[in-house]
Amino acid sequence: MTGSSIQVRSIGTIRTPYTESAPYQPLEEDEGEFRIVLEPEYVNGLEGLSRFRYMYVIYHVHRAQEIRSMIVSPPWAEGVEVGVFASRSPVRPNPLGISIVKIIKIEGREIHTSGLDVFDGTPLLDIKPYIKDLDVKSDANYGWIDDMDDKKHLTLHIKGIPHDHH
Amino acid sequence: MTGSSIQVRSIGTIRTPYTESAPYQPLEEDEGEFRIVLEPEYVNGLEGLSRFRYMYVIYHVHRAQEIRSMIVSPPWAEGVEVGVFASRSPVRPNPLGISIVKIIKIEGREIHTSGLDVFDGTPLLDIKPYIKDLDVKSDANYGWIDDMDDKKHLTLHIKGIPHDHH
Repeated sequence: MTGSSIQVRSIGTIRTPYTESAPYQPLEEDEGEFRIVLEPEYVNGLEGLSRFRYMYVIYHVHRAQEIRSMIVSPPWAEGVEVGVFASRSPVRPNPLGISIVKIIKIEGREIHTSGLDVFDGTPLLDIKPYIKDLDVKSDANYGWIDDMDDKKHLTLHIKGIPHDHH
Repeated sequence: MTGSSIQVRSIGTIRTPYTESAPYQPLEEDEGEFRIVLEPEYVNGLEGLSRFRYMYVIYHVHRAQEIRSMIVSPPWAEGVEVGVFASRSPVRPNPLGISIVKIIKIEGREIHTSGLDVFDGTPLLDIKPYIKDLDVKSDANYGWIDDMDDKKHLTLHIKGIPHDHH
């Protein structure tokens, strides 16, 4: 049986240049403006956040399709099929997304960030500081991505960095 | 105004030794068993996950109090007051928790993991692979934690590692 239902609420809105398509993952090098606009009642919660270089942004992947299979084929890894929990696919049992972004500046209830791989208007659910000792796992690996022919090339796709195909 | 309400559902249960108190953050060195038990309908989503060394666990902090203030005082940082979004406090506008854990082994619908800083019975919302290139930010910092007198000592508290006070 599926467990209990939990209600969360949008606490702000993510503004990006992506209205029709979004990259697979954040592009730090991207051009355009990326902002998080918090609902006014939460603004005091930003106190101290600007001291951090990075933060986690947790959001509702509001334009994702309903999940139909537990197996997904990441668009950048042609032909590979993996379980949804071994992927960062936006189509998941719960449409929750996580991105790590650089904090550029905070003005009032707006946080200017590095590239965020979401559609304009994405509902914000939470912000947490990315803390070096807690979140950097230097011995992390690449999982099944290591099987790919050209790992480096694929890594660019994962990161969503624009590059030539030659 | 507060934005729209979003419904998510529990897709499994986190089993830990913590029934009365939980550490502030995961303890890799902790003794005891840490398991994630997925609801049977999602088991195919685990395909390929065991190739990764680490994963994100996203969960409902079901025993957290209701948030009353946007300013929090982390229990390990006596007297410091920061905004909730500059903290990893379990008491937040949306009770969503994220932990990074080591994947020890996957058997059927059970994932054995390193220490997980949550109460036994915590509802699971999502699992995502921790991918080295995407999630390791080597130039991350410590934010306001750098202001503390004895950063190293406090870092132990953040990590929840048991240690002597002398």
